[in-house]
Amino acid sequence: MTVARAVETLLPDYQITYYGDLARTPYGSKSPEAIIEYSTSNTEFLLNHGANVIIIACNSAASVASNILRQKFNVPIFEVITPAVERAVSSTVSGNIGIIGTRATVRSGIYDEKIKELAPGFRVFSKACPLLVPLVEEGWLETRETKMILRKYLTPLKQKQIDTLVLGCTHYPLLKDLIQHRMGINRVRLIDSSIEVALTLKNYLSVNENVCKILQRGSENKYFVSDMTKAALATAEKIFGRHINLEKV
Amino acid sequence: MTVARAVETLLPDYQITYYGDLARTPYGSKSPEAIIEYSTSNTEFLLNHGANVIIIACNSAASVASNILRQKFNVPIFEVITPAVERAVSSTVSGNIGIIGTRATVRSGIYDEKIKELAPGFRVFSKACPLLVPLVEEGWLETRETKMILRKYLTPLKQKQIDTLVLGCTHYPLLKDLIQHRMGINRVRLIDSSIEVALTLKNYLSVNENVCKILQRGSENKYFVSDMTKAALATAEKIFGRHINLEKV
Repeated sequence: MTVARAVETLLPDYQITYYGDLARTPYGSKSPEAIIEYSTSNTEFLLNHGANVIIIACNSAASVASNILRQKFNVPIFEVITPAVERAVSSTVSGNIGIIGTRATVRSGIYDEKIKELAPGFRVFSKACPLLVPLVEEGWLETRETKMILRKYLTPLKQKQIDTLVLGCTHYPLLKDLIQHRMGINRVRLIDSSIEVALTLKNYLSVNENVCKILQRGSENKYFVSDMTKAALATAEKIFGRHINLEKV
Repeated sequence: MTVARAVETLLPDYQITYYGDLARTPYGSKSPEAIIEYSTSNTEFLLNHGANVIIIACNSAASVASNILRQKFNVPIFEVITPAVERAVSSTVSGNIGIIGTRATVRSGIYDEKIKELAPGFRVFSKACPLLVPLVEEGWLETRETKMILRKYLTPLKQKQIDTLVLGCTHYPLLKDLIQHRMGINRVRLIDSSIEVALTLKNYLSVNENVCKILQRGSENKYFVSDMTKAALATAEKIFGRHINLEKV
């Protein structure tokens, strides 16, 4: 949803079809095989609903499934990792980059691999933070407990003198202020993968007029979910700042 | 797994077929419709693998799906809620009973309903604790953060002067010592739904010889899961105190 919100803000003339697989989330604690299976069926769903460009708006799915989805489906497939990596590499001064994400994302080693492709001498320090997604979903965005857990997760990265930290999970922008405060306001730059992928898509559309025209808005944005709960509606309202009509399919 | 462990301990002569739907957990934050759909397919899986008696070893599934499963399948179906309710009602002196569980379990109101059927004058105080499952799955069984979160969740129940607290989720026995300490060692009795359902099954088998004979062990216990991760293997080892051969299906 943070990605859909960023795309909506940066590209208001395009129609978004969102699919949130809430029945099977969180992906971050599942195996690569399960994530690939679910990501494939989610992509098929979006293509069947008329999507011409896909964004894999989940770091866990992007980290293990994006190459397989690109081989399987003949449409442009964007994901949240590459744009964040490019921004991180161009932002760091010291060459010390931190990554926080789910267990699946960190274990995949994808950020490390992609950063070292672009900048072999850089140092990447990763930390899996599996409690942050449930804390966000509990709505504990500013509690003392969340601050303590962030301290526990972030202290090892702080000790590595990183100057750039990638928020490698689309839930984490909701904790951005707390994370920024813990890492030091002028010491560490945060990279928000939701915003970076929307910027990349905007650049792509500015040089691909054909795709651009296909995508231009004919109707309203659609927000599909595979399960409906009050907590999901509340999170959607928090992210978008307005009521969102989630449609259960 | 805590239920399988309790059944194994109390009924060592019977064969257990366990199915853990790890690909789609946690159930506690999903809608009743999703939980019912998954519980039905899980039950079919176990029946196809020769089960003669079913235990719904998850409070979230038991709270919304047990009546529907009993209508649909013609085998004895036990669940973790009724035995815990019976024990709580017979244990309390003050008539003030606390319940902790997932969002789905607490929202269902099933504990409240079942306790008031047996003891209309008793008072039931419930608290959804959605962070406890991820804390257990992170392995933070004794950290300061877990203690703080428990304090936050449990303080309102403590203020209600409960003398009995039902651990209404099969993950919570792993936090039993911390919960007992927080609630007061001599003040509050904890009811472990995993142990209570195993005791109920044992009583049932002692008076149902036919079922008893069918169930007697012909081969080894089987532990099937729908997804395989290192964290699941580690949790299984912690609960059983030995290596468990989880088989992915």
